Amino acid sequence: MNEIERVAREIAQSPEDLIFIHGAGSYGHAPAKKYGLPGKFDPIGLRNTHACVAKLNSLVVDALAKAGANPMPVHPLSSMILQSGRIKDFFVEPIAEMVKRGLMPVLHGDVALDISQGAGIVSGDQLVSYLARALNAGVIAVGTDKDGVIFEGAPLKEITRERLPELGSALGGSTAVDVTGGMKGKLLELLELADTGSNSIIFNASKEGLIARALKGELVGTLVRT
Amino acid sequence: MNEIERVAREIAQSPEDLIFIHGAGSYGHAPAKKYGLPGKFDPIGLRNTHACVAKLNSLVVDALAKAGANPMPVHPLSSMILQSGRIKDFFVEPIAEMVKRGLMPVLHGDVALDISQGAGIVSGDQLVSYLARALNAGVIAVGTDKDGVIFEGAPLKEITRERLPELGSALGGSTAVDVTGGMKGKLLELLELADTGSNSIIFNASKEGLIARALKGELVGTLVRT
Repeated sequence: MNEIERVAREIAQSPEDLIFIHGAGSYGHAPAKKYGLPGKFDPIGLRNTHACVAKLNSLVVDALAKAGANPMPVHPLSSMILQSGRIKDFFVEPIAEMVKRGLMPVLHGDVALDISQGAGIVSGDQLVSYLARALNAGVIAVGTDKDGVIFEGAPLKEITRERLPELGSALGGSTAVDVTGGMKGKLLELLELADTGSNSIIFNASKEGLIARALKGELVGTLVRT
Repeated sequence: MNEIERVAREIAQSPEDLIFIHGAGSYGHAPAKKYGLPGKFDPIGLRNTHACVAKLNSLVVDALAKAGANPMPVHPLSSMILQSGRIKDFFVEPIAEMVKRGLMPVLHGDVALDISQGAGIVSGDQLVSYLARALNAGVIAVGTDKDGVIFEGAPLKEITRERLPELGSALGGSTAVDVTGGMKGKLLELLELADTGSNSIIFNASKEGLIARALKGELVGTLVRT
């Protein structure tokens, strides 16, 4: 069983009313870098990068369906507009309606049109923060391949905006190639969410069993709090 | 060269500021019928039907790109909500922004969430009518495999709402399997558009050269007018 299948199985066993967002992973970050995204407006780069992340999305949707969930793909390119790299408008009604009808929306980091710079990238992390707020999520769990926010060799139990300067450059990327900011990018999105009163956790999704516990609200990683 | 490639080549040679909408074709109508859509709310049927039309969309997008256009896929499932089978809300900003940036949005007949009946089908024809109005289209050309609206063996030069009862049952389907109404469905959508002051034509896209002429506004089929 590959990692996508294992994650899909853990997700499918979890409570309903779930929105699943995955990053672009190696499928998206490599072509984005190749075509100079974000920053350069290149129709071929946009189309190819989107095709790569849409392909990853369909692998995830298929794995979730095989595991017994009722996933439905949702593509940010079709449903949002950016401004200077941040979500300006995002039509979330189909997502809300899917959840209401027992379907699991499956979104992904994507390219999107940007009214100020032509096009840009919306990370899975920005989607998490925006949707959690827009749809008033109860539990917000961000899976990575680390045990949480690592500082001086160990995962922090919790983090607040006040502690950010002190951590400084200790926050590296969570994976090899990541054009959207790695662990620091994740943290900045989740701190913005915390500013609005919603806590979240960053945990290690590569350790079997932790996804199910995280989705129940257990503090299995670093708590990002108000 | 297959038909998709030929159509793509004709489209790619046409003026800019073009939105391309294709139907679900055999890719969508067959699974929709199999799963009892619209009418039956079946998560597996929705997902599989969407996957089939998304596959057709990606073939069309690839063919357009190969022909030299700058196509970008847009999926109605991600960007609209239906009510009783009609478009209730449709987030058209990404489509407008694509056109503004020299990209060609490529949409397709799709399944979509429906606030009154769970889920439904939005035909390419309904998309044409809605988008032409929302984005104030200059030329609206609907390609079929017939020379227009056929009545008593010949294509009508023009048609208005007043003549509809007289034509009656002469309006059959334009293809073998079509869950969204065939030629009559097209005509009803375009008459609704005509009611708002926008004329359109129904023409034969299977005849080489007619797409380019239709997109220039030539009356190469049946004019559907106010």
